Amino acid sequence: MAQRLERIKKTIGCIPNFPKEGIIFRDIFPVCQNPEIFGDLIDIFVEHLQQKHEKIDVVVGLEARGFLFGPILAQRLKCSFVPIRKKGKLPGECIQVSYELEYGTDIFEAQKLAIKKDQKVIIVDDLLATGGTMKAACDLVDKMSGKVLECLVAIELTDLKGRDKVPYPLKSFTSFDGH
Amino acid sequence: MAQRLERIKKTIGCIPNFPKEGIIFRDIFPVCQNPEIFGDLIDIFVEHLQQKHEKIDVVVGLEARGFLFGPILAQRLKCSFVPIRKKGKLPGECIQVSYELEYGTDIFEAQKLAIKKDQKVIIVDDLLATGGTMKAACDLVDKMSGKVLECLVAIELTDLKGRDKVPYPLKSFTSFDGH
Repeated sequence: MAQRLERIKKTIGCIPNFPKEGIIFRDIFPVCQNPEIFGDLIDIFVEHLQQKHEKIDVVVGLEARGFLFGPILAQRLKCSFVPIRKKGKLPGECIQVSYELEYGTDIFEAQKLAIKKDQKVIIVDDLLATGGTMKAACDLVDKMSGKVLECLVAIELTDLKGRDKVPYPLKSFTSFDGH
Repeated sequence: MAQRLERIKKTIGCIPNFPKEGIIFRDIFPVCQNPEIFGDLIDIFVEHLQQKHEKIDVVVGLEARGFLFGPILAQRLKCSFVPIRKKGKLPGECIQVSYELEYGTDIFEAQKLAIKKDQKVIIVDDLLATGGTMKAACDLVDKMSGKVLECLVAIELTDLKGRDKVPYPLKSFTSFDGH
């Protein structure tokens, strides 16, 4: 486990001053480019989930980089994949939740019938920064009466303390201090 | 094969007047919600690709719904997954291509080092409509000196004749006439 995680962590890209000055962007895509290392990361997610939860009904993935992990995990766990997207991108009747950005607010949506009452839900994304979008995703699943078991990310930026905002257990597989 | 495809086609959502009046939106997400039917679709993609191509180096997925298929196909084929995204979303040095929208133009990007010269590339997306974004993706891979073997979509809207715009072989697994 430790060796696999070390190799994953070394493969994550590190791009200074993106998307703006003073931010170091941690880039998951170099991991996706290496099938062996990407496979290790998926395996680590699956091993963790199978060990920790007896039954998972739904894997929720946050647009867009959560889609890199969500469908593949849902297939491995033989459960449903459900997307959360920015407002206006999902067709049909949707449930909404608004969340705060640095300036102003934004809205997340999920398709109304995609999660049933008391279904057991895992939420995945590539990265946890300030925790605002992960918290919004939890609120949205709550509003749909799903039960969030756990939130999972490949990368956690620990100094942003996003973890404190997330109302359910949060598991990260690699972490970086200093953004 | 035919039975599996029939079941997939029946599961694809059909939402009239989205995103605007007069359009019938074909929604892949109900397929993703059923692990067995989603698994069938992935298998059908993989069987086709393995039968048709001796070697694939890279699966390219178009943001955001191409990310539903790209990583899972790349893992099954043991090759690299590379994203194409709208301008400004990918960190590091990028190659760009612009393409026409109904009003104005937009820009697609890929990370410069993600595709090497003469690598064999498959491009995947959920749906082919007018073909504009698929053509742009082909142009971008050309610009990066990759070799596009084939473009794959789960759904083709045949009456929009998007196929005529795509400069490489196009394979669709379900099709709908009348949008």
